[in-house]
Amino acid sequence: MEVGFLGLGIMGKAMALNLLRHGFGVTVWNRTLSKCKELVEQGASVGETPAFVINKCKYTIAMLSDPSAVLSVMFDKDGVLEQICSGKGYIDMSTVDADTSSKISEAITKKGGYFLEAPVSGSKKPAEDGQLVILAAGEKALYEEMIPAFNVLGKKSFFLGQVGNGAKMKLVVNMIMGSMMNALSEGLCLADRSSLNEQTLLDVLELAAIANPMFKMKGPAMIQSNYSPAFPLKHQQKDMRLALALGDENAVSMPVAAAANEAFKKARSMGLGDLDFSAVHEVVKTAKGSGEA
Amino acid sequence: MEVGFLGLGIMGKAMALNLLRHGFGVTVWNRTLSKCKELVEQGASVGETPAFVINKCKYTIAMLSDPSAVLSVMFDKDGVLEQICSGKGYIDMSTVDADTSSKISEAITKKGGYFLEAPVSGSKKPAEDGQLVILAAGEKALYEEMIPAFNVLGKKSFFLGQVGNGAKMKLVVNMIMGSMMNALSEGLCLADRSSLNEQTLLDVLELAAIANPMFKMKGPAMIQSNYSPAFPLKHQQKDMRLALALGDENAVSMPVAAAANEAFKKARSMGLGDLDFSAVHEVVKTAKGSGEA
Amino acid sequence: MEVGFLGLGIMGKAMALNLLRHGFGVTVWNRTLSKCKELVEQGASVGETPAFVINKCKYTIAMLSDPSAVLSVMFDKDGVLEQICSGKGYIDMSTVDADTSSKISEAITKKGGYFLEAPVSGSKKPAEDGQLVILAAGEKALYEEMIPAFNVLGKKSFFLGQVGNGAKMKLVVNMIMGSMMNALSEGLCLADRSSLNEQTLLDVLELAAIANPMFKMKGPAMIQSNYSPAFPLKHQQKDMRLALALGDENAVSMPVAAAANEAFKKARSMGLGDLDFSAVHEVVKTAKGSGEA
Amino acid sequence: MEVGFLGLGIMGKAMALNLLRHGFGVTVWNRTLSKCKELVEQGASVGETPAFVINKCKYTIAMLSDPSAVLSVMFDKDGVLEQICSGKGYIDMSTVDADTSSKISEAITKKGGYFLEAPVSGSKKPAEDGQLVILAAGEKALYEEMIPAFNVLGKKSFFLGQVGNGAKMKLVVNMIMGSMMNALSEGLCLADRSSLNEQTLLDVLELAAIANPMFKMKGPAMIQSNYSPAFPLKHQQKDMRLALALGDENAVSMPVAAAANEAFKKARSMGLGDLDFSAVHEVVKTAKGSGEA
Repeated sequence: MEVGFLGLGIMGKAMALNLLRHGFGVTVWNRTLSKCKELVEQGASVGETPAFVINKCKYTIAMLSDPSAVLSVMFDKDGVLEQICSGKGYIDMSTVDADTSSKISEAITKKGGYFLEAPVSGSKKPAEDGQLVILAAGEKALYEEMIPAFNVLGKKSFFLGQVGNGAKMKLVVNMIMGSMMNALSEGLCLADRSSLNEQTLLDVLELAAIANPMFKMKGPAMIQSNYSPAFPLKHQQKDMRLALALGDENAVSMPVAAAANEAFKKARSMGLGDLDFSAVHEVVKTAKGSGEA
Repeated sequence: MEVGFLGLGIMGKAMALNLLRHGFGVTVWNRTLSKCKELVEQGASVGETPAFVINKCKYTIAMLSDPSAVLSVMFDKDGVLEQICSGKGYIDMSTVDADTSSKISEAITKKGGYFLEAPVSGSKKPAEDGQLVILAAGEKALYEEMIPAFNVLGKKSFFLGQVGNGAKMKLVVNMIMGSMMNALSEGLCLADRSSLNEQTLLDVLELAAIANPMFKMKGPAMIQSNYSPAFPLKHQQKDMRLALALGDENAVSMPVAAAANEAFKKARSMGLGDLDFSAVHEVVKTAKGSGEA
Repeated sequence: MEVGFLGLGIMGKAMALNLLRHGFGVTVWNRTLSKCKELVEQGASVGETPAFVINKCKYTIAMLSDPSAVLSVMFDKDGVLEQICSGKGYIDMSTVDADTSSKISEAITKKGGYFLEAPVSGSKKPAEDGQLVILAAGEKALYEEMIPAFNVLGKKSFFLGQVGNGAKMKLVVNMIMGSMMNALSEGLCLADRSSLNEQTLLDVLELAAIANPMFKMKGPAMIQSNYSPAFPLKHQQKDMRLALALGDENAVSMPVAAAANEAFKKARSMGLGDLDFSAVHEVVKTAKGSGEA
Repeated sequence: MEVGFLGLGIMGKAMALNLLRHGFGVTVWNRTLSKCKELVEQGASVGETPAFVINKCKYTIAMLSDPSAVLSVMFDKDGVLEQICSGKGYIDMSTVDADTSSKISEAITKKGGYFLEAPVSGSKKPAEDGQLVILAAGEKALYEEMIPAFNVLGKKSFFLGQVGNGAKMKLVVNMIMGSMMNALSEGLCLADRSSLNEQTLLDVLELAAIANPMFKMKGPAMIQSNYSPAFPLKHQQKDMRLALALGDENAVSMPVAAAANEAFKKARSMGLGDLDFSAVHEVVKTAKGSGEA
């Protein structure tokens, strides 16, 4: 199977390599073309423009950094739109908002092309290991044709219906994650202030019915006040805001998520937005040296 | 090793059987003595009163239903206190409040005995499988002497320091669990009202970094509005209240747990206190037939 | 002083009448021109189009129902924009969002006109009595020239700086109001469930340092579950959402307002959006017939 | 009318003076007897012990500092209990918890005496001006006999039913007050961060339907970060905790009060417990120098 691949950032490069290793023919493009070199050594072809890649390949996957990159690759000169046409499929695996996804979808559909949004859950390591979770939505037929590629890129893919549902599903998952992070942080603080050992709490949690990889991974770092950013707090807070807005649209009352969101906002106001989202722990904790009157 | 065992309810019986199977000599007592029969068939001796068991055994484990049973077995005629003395150890694995635990501890210590509180995390199945998590606190030497028994009863035991810490650790864990249950419930509702499939959300969660056994076990039942009580909501709410009170004592602000607690209280006010704690889902959901004005 | 007046709804008619009674010359326009009749009997002139009014008067006040009416009166054929020019002032006292206000402001300024947004606090009765509170922002010189009119229309006017600040101030006030409404509702429920008389609580509140006209006006109706809409709940919830969004922009954490907002959302989900915002009381109360398990 | 008066602190002294000025015969007692001097100059008699005062007077009012003083005056040697008997009335206007009130009530009733709890709303100034609000509960006949005294001490008295209801009513009022204080604080912060003037917000609030004396009195001080204690934050938080506990007993969900309570707890953890309860503003505000990442 031949696929185009636009965008060779940390995620995109790992994904394109996986496709090559599993026998896919891959034509890559990246804004900085020199980044294509490593892929070429592994057998990839290079396309000089997005339009070139689209023209060459029946299916093209995009994995770009943000909505503005996604829009530029689509609508700029030599962009996707110049060559997309009936019979061609475009799969956007970038994480973008619903509006951007709709614009892309409409533009492609108008030209007769097929569109699938397919944001992923998982970061660098799962991308390298082909262990992503793929949240696809849009053209069902295209989803089915892409299954061989999705099987290489992820441990599981879901087809979620109409365009926008992939992004929504990601918001719901991240909202639950944000509430859980606050629950862990509050528990660690309560343990610490109640003369219990925080690490022991983590050990007990790991054996409980609520044991989960995030607690295991983030907990020890939080005890050390180590918040090197894997998922920046300001992005987590943005996702909670968008999830709450989605709830507002549909009149869903979510008081726990709302309380968690306010804690993340407090963290932003304390200048912690660029740290890992676990830095919300600094809001829950009391500054050393302070104490009860 | 010889141990006494007081209390043969669902949990106690399973635990005493495990001790027998692993070669412990066990002298059992139960308020309704006929319940001892099955244990006797497996090789146990019977003690006619708690005092008799204490007199006979160097170590006695209690697994009783609630604080009033714990106090009665200790202080009533023919109770533990009549025979406890220097050189004897008493291990209370029942779940009781800090006050009750302190009373028992003081009474035993005054007589020269050793005391360990050792509440467990886990219910019937883990008790049968010797997979409990044991949260011990009190006399450290006694904890160490009991390790062979704890190894049979649980997959892991912790020594947490002074009496009261076992109960506190359980509160912290249950508080985190209560917030997580609300996070799941809000996520399910948001998915449902946003045209996403609830079961698909559960499938995605199971592959995410926040995957945990509770979501897997409770989620599908919640979708079906099936809340047969494993852990009654009113007990979960009581634990959240106590955890928040512990936080109040120590000036720990926990807004997410507080929001979750109010949802559990709302559930109680709707008459759902005897259902499973996952019934808080009924608070978050909107009654069928209603809709936005 | 001569002024134009666009929009003779409940509020606009009362305001225009006040101006006439205090000796202003008023040229009125309304989409349904027949509504001008009563004003003419009181001495008003009629303008057949917004453009006509602008052309005739140096100052024109608009009091229109919603953003779409505001935009239509501005940009449609025979609209304000056709005649606005250097030396003329346009004062929009309608309640609109910041975006709409900005669009109007830009269009007018580009033509050389002066613009003032001046939303009001207060409804029908204060409009009739000239007791509105006027939250003006935009062109300071125009504000000062309008003071004679504002003195007739309101008990107090404020100049708040740049365009947008009038709308923001209204959001902040309404956010505080929404939290207070929930505080009252929770207090009434707690009183009722604790065997205290709700009306007595209201009587005590009226003598306390937190006594306020809203509690006095809404409290007795809430006890009776009487929620005839003065300020619809869905509008109150929208204002809380916008206030929280403003806080999000500026990283202000507001957990009490967030909790109040979720209660209003719950009320919407129960179909109460068109009732008075005090109907949030139905969320806090427990349905009759239910009770604790 | 002759009354005994126990306790001449700030409040008690002002109240006893008011009774004297309005022609009551007053026999005073205070732990430090020298404090009686000023009262004697105004015509009071002195009782050397609480028992003496009870013996002399048909009605005795107590205004003591806290539960331990209340219990000591009742049960210690030469205390109230030694002389209380059929035909005598004891009116406790101190602010105490329900348990203390119940103990006092039982002890007096057992001896044949009449009891009324009558905590007050209002502090030094209203006490001096006879403008307290009196929340009485207990023996109705005694309440009616005390009306002439209550008319002198307060602007209004309420009879609320059985013993305990006075204390409960005070909790409900203080809970609403605590939520409102947070609402004001959040509003001030939102205004400040949104380029609105905080004092202008206070000016606008004063003209709105939510205008109230507390906003007027506390608002300007909060802007100046001036929190000299009128009502200490730790007492306000204690009252919110007790109000929430009362709600828990009766299964009343109060998410806004719960969020406000967590903010007060955070303030305690920052060492602000002895400042005025308006110091919760420091929790909502962002520390100077910090800023968004």
